[in-house]
Amino acid sequence: MHTGFYDEIHEEFREVVREFVTREVTPHYKQWDAAHMMPRALWEAAAENGLLGLAVPEEHGGMGLADYRFRMIIDEELARADALGAALAFHLHDDWVLPALLQFATEEQKQSWLPRFMDGSFVSSVGFTEPGAGSDLRGVRTKATKNDDGSWTLNGQKTFIGNGISGDGALVLARTDGSDVKQRGGATSFSLFLVTKEGNPGYTPGNQLEKMGLKASDTAELFFSDVQIPAANLIGEEGRGLEYVKAILPQGRLAVAAAAVVVAETVLDQTLDYVTQRNAFGERIADFQNTRFQLADLQTGLEAAQRYLAAQVEGFNAGQLDLAGASKAKLHASEFAKKCVDICLQLHGGYGYILEYPVAQAYLAVRLLTIFGGTSEILKETIAQELLAGSAPNSR
Amino acid sequence: MHTGFYDEIHEEFREVVREFVTREVTPHYKQWDAAHMMPRALWEAAAENGLLGLAVPEEHGGMGLADYRFRMIIDEELARADALGAALAFHLHDDWVLPALLQFATEEQKQSWLPRFMDGSFVSSVGFTEPGAGSDLRGVRTKATKNDDGSWTLNGQKTFIGNGISGDGALVLARTDGSDVKQRGGATSFSLFLVTKEGNPGYTPGNQLEKMGLKASDTAELFFSDVQIPAANLIGEEGRGLEYVKAILPQGRLAVAAAAVVVAETVLDQTLDYVTQRNAFGERIADFQNTRFQLADLQTGLEAAQRYLAAQVEGFNAGQLDLAGASKAKLHASEFAKKCVDICLQLHGGYGYILEYPVAQAYLAVRLLTIFGGTSEILKETIAQELLAGSAPNSR
Amino acid sequence: MHTGFYDEIHEEFREVVREFVTREVTPHYKQWDAAHMMPRALWEAAAENGLLGLAVPEEHGGMGLADYRFRMIIDEELARADALGAALAFHLHDDWVLPALLQFATEEQKQSWLPRFMDGSFVSSVGFTEPGAGSDLRGVRTKATKNDDGSWTLNGQKTFIGNGISGDGALVLARTDGSDVKQRGGATSFSLFLVTKEGNPGYTPGNQLEKMGLKASDTAELFFSDVQIPAANLIGEEGRGLEYVKAILPQGRLAVAAAAVVVAETVLDQTLDYVTQRNAFGERIADFQNTRFQLADLQTGLEAAQRYLAAQVEGFNAGQLDLAGASKAKLHASEFAKKCVDICLQLHGGYGYILEYPVAQAYLAVRLLTIFGGTSEILKETIAQELLAGSAPNSR
Amino acid sequence: MHTGFYDEIHEEFREVVREFVTREVTPHYKQWDAAHMMPRALWEAAAENGLLGLAVPEEHGGMGLADYRFRMIIDEELARADALGAALAFHLHDDWVLPALLQFATEEQKQSWLPRFMDGSFVSSVGFTEPGAGSDLRGVRTKATKNDDGSWTLNGQKTFIGNGISGDGALVLARTDGSDVKQRGGATSFSLFLVTKEGNPGYTPGNQLEKMGLKASDTAELFFSDVQIPAANLIGEEGRGLEYVKAILPQGRLAVAAAAVVVAETVLDQTLDYVTQRNAFGERIADFQNTRFQLADLQTGLEAAQRYLAAQVEGFNAGQLDLAGASKAKLHASEFAKKCVDICLQLHGGYGYILEYPVAQAYLAVRLLTIFGGTSEILKETIAQELLAGSAPNSR
Ligand SMILES: Cc1cc2nc3c(=O)[nH]c(=O)nc-3n(C[C@H](O)[C@H](O)[C@H](O)COP(=O)(O)OP(=O)(O)OC[C@H]3O[C@@H](n4cnc5c(N)ncnc54)[C@H](O)[C@@H]3O)c2cc1C
Ligand SMILES: Cc1cc2nc3c(=O)[nH]c(=O)nc-3n(C[C@H](O)[C@H](O)[C@H](O)COP(=O)(O)OP(=O)(O)OC[C@H]3O[C@@H](n4cnc5c(N)ncnc54)[C@H](O)[C@@H]3O)c2cc1C
Ligand SMILES: Cc1cc2nc3c(=O)[nH]c(=O)nc-3n(C[C@H](O)[C@H](O)[C@H](O)COP(=O)(O)OP(=O)(O)OC[C@H]3O[C@@H](n4cnc5c(N)ncnc54)[C@H](O)[C@@H]3O)c2cc1C
Ligand SMILES: Cc1cc2nc3c(=O)[nH]c(=O)nc-3n(C[C@H](O)[C@H](O)[C@H](O)COP(=O)(O)OP(=O)(O)OC[C@H]3O[C@@H](n4cnc5c(N)ncnc54)[C@H](O)[C@@H]3O)c2cc1C
Repeated sequence: MHTGFYDEIHEEFREVVREFVTREVTPHYKQWDAAHMMPRALWEAAAENGLLGLAVPEEHGGMGLADYRFRMIIDEELARADALGAALAFHLHDDWVLPALLQFATEEQKQSWLPRFMDGSFVSSVGFTEPGAGSDLRGVRTKATKNDDGSWTLNGQKTFIGNGISGDGALVLARTDGSDVKQRGGATSFSLFLVTKEGNPGYTPGNQLEKMGLKASDTAELFFSDVQIPAANLIGEEGRGLEYVKAILPQGRLAVAAAAVVVAETVLDQTLDYVTQRNAFGERIADFQNTRFQLADLQTGLEAAQRYLAAQVEGFNAGQLDLAGASKAKLHASEFAKKCVDICLQLHGGYGYILEYPVAQAYLAVRLLTIFGGTSEILKETIAQELLAGSAPNSR
Repeated sequence: MHTGFYDEIHEEFREVVREFVTREVTPHYKQWDAAHMMPRALWEAAAENGLLGLAVPEEHGGMGLADYRFRMIIDEELARADALGAALAFHLHDDWVLPALLQFATEEQKQSWLPRFMDGSFVSSVGFTEPGAGSDLRGVRTKATKNDDGSWTLNGQKTFIGNGISGDGALVLARTDGSDVKQRGGATSFSLFLVTKEGNPGYTPGNQLEKMGLKASDTAELFFSDVQIPAANLIGEEGRGLEYVKAILPQGRLAVAAAAVVVAETVLDQTLDYVTQRNAFGERIADFQNTRFQLADLQTGLEAAQRYLAAQVEGFNAGQLDLAGASKAKLHASEFAKKCVDICLQLHGGYGYILEYPVAQAYLAVRLLTIFGGTSEILKETIAQELLAGSAPNSR
Repeated sequence: MHTGFYDEIHEEFREVVREFVTREVTPHYKQWDAAHMMPRALWEAAAENGLLGLAVPEEHGGMGLADYRFRMIIDEELARADALGAALAFHLHDDWVLPALLQFATEEQKQSWLPRFMDGSFVSSVGFTEPGAGSDLRGVRTKATKNDDGSWTLNGQKTFIGNGISGDGALVLARTDGSDVKQRGGATSFSLFLVTKEGNPGYTPGNQLEKMGLKASDTAELFFSDVQIPAANLIGEEGRGLEYVKAILPQGRLAVAAAAVVVAETVLDQTLDYVTQRNAFGERIADFQNTRFQLADLQTGLEAAQRYLAAQVEGFNAGQLDLAGASKAKLHASEFAKKCVDICLQLHGGYGYILEYPVAQAYLAVRLLTIFGGTSEILKETIAQELLAGSAPNSR
Repeated sequence: MHTGFYDEIHEEFREVVREFVTREVTPHYKQWDAAHMMPRALWEAAAENGLLGLAVPEEHGGMGLADYRFRMIIDEELARADALGAALAFHLHDDWVLPALLQFATEEQKQSWLPRFMDGSFVSSVGFTEPGAGSDLRGVRTKATKNDDGSWTLNGQKTFIGNGISGDGALVLARTDGSDVKQRGGATSFSLFLVTKEGNPGYTPGNQLEKMGLKASDTAELFFSDVQIPAANLIGEEGRGLEYVKAILPQGRLAVAAAAVVVAETVLDQTLDYVTQRNAFGERIADFQNTRFQLADLQTGLEAAQRYLAAQVEGFNAGQLDLAGASKAKLHASEFAKKCVDICLQLHGGYGYILEYPVAQAYLAVRLLTIFGGTSEILKETIAQELLAGSAPNSR
């Protein structure tokens, strides 16, 4: 990010993160990538360094680092270490599941859950998407039926679930109004649950999904077969699940925007190095006008993306980032990052195609960013809706 | 611009500008456009409202509105009135010639010239470009020879000179080291002069250049045939002309960036109105997903452009905007504005092609912005140079 | 077009056209552009050279040059002469009105009208678009009511009508089923008429519409106030107007595609000349890698556009070009031409902004091509419809 | 490709290929992809079906299928089977090494080598690129020194060599004029050799390069340490290596262009299927206007790419495809395919990111196409050179 964006306190935090990454991530990351899985030890080490559950308030034993710039520093350092899969894993936990708890869990739930969110003993997943329902969550078929004792029985299937194999539980969106699961549900048909795997034999992860990139982070289908959910694991009120999902989307999308900018700046840096060191035709690749112009364009675009992101982060920190704002941030940043990394890869020539080169890994990583957490198309729908909200409806 | 960019003091200034525009510009602008010329009365009215020479410090009788946001408000109100030609005319005077005087004129020169810059009695032109030298000012052939009494004799030809017919004088870049004008001069071959038309029969504007748009602003060739320049009209020191030009480029380019953003936001606004009011196939144009997506993209791009511009304006106000920064600002804003207006025109259907519609005028106006004051290509050269400045030269 | 596209017979025809253009168009075109009008003498001269009504079959006294390559040669030569307005005027007559007659007029109508289409005594307009109905012709409100004697009374208003002031009559789409004109009509609500101005005081052209470019070709609103249309001027059958319009769209769109390619190749040629002749920084503009890469891209794109057009022209000549095919041709060619001319303008620097330079005129001309005769959006609708035609409808 | 491109004889050949693919490729391809290696049995099966060495003339025991459409059919069928790695492996053998032999080998060499090119017993690699020399082959450092008996001793290192591990030999470009390998060689510094692995212990493949996609095809470094090359394995004359490379580039580039078009058409097909079968928000993905417009654009672009390719194939078949033509073909097709597959992936939502889906594999495959066999930048250099060839040099 641009000079002035971070304060000294963030830079101090960066020191911690950097040491953590150097020690705990870099030496092992390639193995994790090959194994398509990161070990629990990583989470524990992160916890020890205070890198999980950043935003948990002090009253709940957390560090209260709700200022989003702290989260960004974690992304930055992981990106610089070419360990984007780890960033994704933490992101799901801290930018999706945690905010839901912080916003909608009861005091009791917080007291019971938040400590485990910070100590690495409960790694969480986001369980929204299903084979037949991604952009359109009203298509969710996973069904929770309330039992007489107030507990719930959960049946269904989720897919694309990050930390799905390695994790301990998921924030699950399920249909709770008994509506016909073959049809789209209504606005109040769904509820959110924190569903834990332990002691729940019906909670079964499927096989790894073979992703294009970000392999160190495990992604899988989840199957729920008569999974028992205690009444206490309902988040907020029954029937308000979609509303809650919408409420946490701003942070989730802002987070993706931030990751996108971080990747773009890291890759652009690496590319500047590359093109000034490699020669062809007796010149540095950096000296060809085409290279110069591409880099100038990207640097300019990057700075604009940084400033735009900074404005949204500021808004978020002030509690003012709405859904349209976060959608614009994600749209802008992720589309820019995708273009930026693509051009940078091209400037690497054949080496850009080899996975050993960070630019290749980044290319595979950024392709997710315009899809996950709201496709660019869905973002545009959201933005357009806000943009046209004031205007009179068609008179037809 | 986004909420929070302007303070109350700017909004008060806006009231003045708006009234001025409503009263003095709007009723006449179409005529000026047809005449390819604006009257002196416009400058005088602007002067009366304190809209000329904004940055002239109080000690020189000015208002000391060096905060660039004041200049932007003038652009915004003129854009909203579809009077972009007037914006261009003021821009040349206040964003190019004035900064040169403020930075490099002697106290005496300032005392003699600045009042006339503010009262509308001296309308100024930028006289850099020549038929054979635009991007590359070392190709300037206009030649000033020093006479025994320290005065200078000027011969040569300039082109693309805004306010060239209607104005009173020009900031002229001329070759002063006697070097062969058929060859590129060196870094110290050129000097800057404030050359006045009055009493100088050899100072002759050529015919209007028939521009694509922005017609209300006159643009012409200038011919200098044995024009006499008093010694006192040399700006700064002999041989430092190119250096001075480089020094004022940041403001000039920032100004174009600001104009670009202003035009984009105005046109996007107008387009939102248009597409919500026009129907086809029983729907508002606004309701087609293609329209919605285009608008969402543009709104997002606009906000990013605004934030990026804001950062540069802040830098400028703090005296920290360098050439590369201003070049990035201009590149980003002008390319965005060009794209934005093009898409907005398309959304107007056939009406976008008719000059009566502001979007058509804006389309013609923005095409200049990636050329004037440094083409996008030249900007990229400048940006790349800074970007690669630190890197080791090729070892070959 | 590429080598091999034209045969010798076309090249002979080109000689005729070239002489005609040199003699009759070039010396006067600037005047016509300033006057926003071309004289009847131009049409007469074109007629003398056999350039009007090309496709009229020999049995109707024509030359039977239905091979579309002949029409393309006229476009090419006018483009090379920077006289695109003339190309537009002829285009309306020969590519829209004439095909309607050739396809749907009775033998009697043909005998009475075709000679006048070829001798320059009847210059025709396309009267489809209205202020409230462009893309969506079912919104046409102009109404023709059948009188007892079988004649019709026409009331309404058209807009954007090329040759609207200078011409003698128009192919008018009007509502004939008495349906409520404030609502969209049905598929059979409309009929086509050839309406003549002579002796019809209710047929009044409005003022010139001030177009962005192509000024030599007059464009205006048309007002019909109790205009009397003889029964014999109904084209084909009552109620089949929209069907007929659809039937002539392939030629109309192919024609725009051809014009687009022609403009792109002309401008690219001119630009190659320009950049090899102008210098900056001691190099030819052509020698900067950015210039070289842009030109390489455009040349490649142009050749692809030529080949694609050639395939469609071949299809047309074989009577096999359908609406989707022509729509694809227009979409591809017009979007390419727009991009091509824009980049070429940029390579001209400031000169590209001056109307004296053909590239500036071409820039203004091509902006129409993605709008007129079916906007790019409408084309995409048409193409998508065909593409998805086979697929099963949504089961919802 | 479009209807009419293939004749009946090609379609018959397609039957053979299709059966081969169904039987020999499809059942095993996933394994090969996982193993990063294809077995020799594949080549043997291909040989049995007459799919190797297509262009070998009948007089050398081949089928003389020099008509490039036969090669395209192999690509098409492999693409349809999502087996692009196999296409790459065959491509190197048939589109690069074989043409060099056919054009420059002596009658004796042909008689000795061609049979093995067709029977699967000699799988060949292209050994041009080195760690320090890709686009600029004058940077090749691999050195062949002539021994007294006319044989050669080869030392050096190649990289990115397809079939490098699995193959039997390579067409090696080596420096033969004794010039300083740390400097760029001259136009006549290099020669081409067919170097065989058997019996040559100094010929050692390195480890697999972990490519982004196309994994079934092995790619590796090759090390040459005192490799002995018989005099008879020099191709053509000493010192003409670069000239020969240039001579085979047209086929190599045309082949990449063809592969690109083939992939684009396959993926677009699959995507049409996908979007008509998947629903969201109660609609088929295909019914959103954004989807429709994207598909319309891609279909149009694809058809243009097909027509352009067809023209170049025709030129090739007639012996008239030059380097600039092939470069244009490759530039156009590969850039289009890259864009096409990217958009298609996006239309698959999250599934596009999962390797099980062909679109994901294709995304990884096409990223190579703008790099391998001449980067897009190098192609533009070549094209620009031809374009500006006629123009006068700069007078400076
Ligand atoms: C690697 C990976 C990790 C993921 N991790 C998680 C996770 O941890 N937890 C989780 O819950 N989910 C996760 N997801 C799911 C992800 O959020 C969804 O893939 C995404 O929301 C899109 O949904 P979909 O895949 O069903 O696409 P679809 O909704 O089927 O969309 C298909 C296409 O149609 C377009 N489309 C949809 N609606 C419209 C419309 N109205 N107008 C125009 N176009 C439209 C889409 O933009 C897309 O291009 C992950 C996905 C991936 C690939
Ligand atoms: C309407 C209008 C008003 C203007 N007003 C004024 C005014 O008031 N005062 C004034 O002094 N000037 C004025 N200008 C001039 C303007 O600043 C120049 O046109 C501009 O700087 C470009 O110079 P040029 O036209 O000579 O283009 P050239 O320098 O000839 O450039 C031609 C093309 O070559 C490209 N090019 C040049 N160098 C390189 C390179 N090294 N690498 C790659 N590409 C390169 C350019 O980007 C451009 O695309 C005006 C111009 C216009 C059109
Ligand atoms: C210079 C000029 C000359 C012309 N000459 C003639 C002539 O001689 N005769 C004649 O009859 N007409 C003529 N036309 C009219 C021309 O054909 C129409 O302008 C054109 O068809 C578009 O119609 P519209 O202007 O009403 O735009 P609208 O139909 O109002 O369209 C506005 C915007 O909405 C978009 N849109 C419309 N429907 C959809 C949809 N379903 N989905 C997504 N987007 C949509 C359009 O693409 C466009 O971007 C001329 C126009 C011009 C500018
Ligand atoms: C998967 C794979 C398989 C391959 N298979 C083979 C094979 O079988 N045999 C073989 O011999 N080779 C093979 N190659 C090598 C391939 O042909 C080269 O990678 C390619 O030619 C580019 O060379 P480079 O990687 O050295 O890039 P460089 O030449 O280093 O280029 C780096 C960047 O600089 C740019 N550049 C270079 N020169 C200029 C210039 N003058 N102006 C502007 N930009 C410039 C390039 O376009 C690129 O963007 C393979 C490559 C890959 C990735």
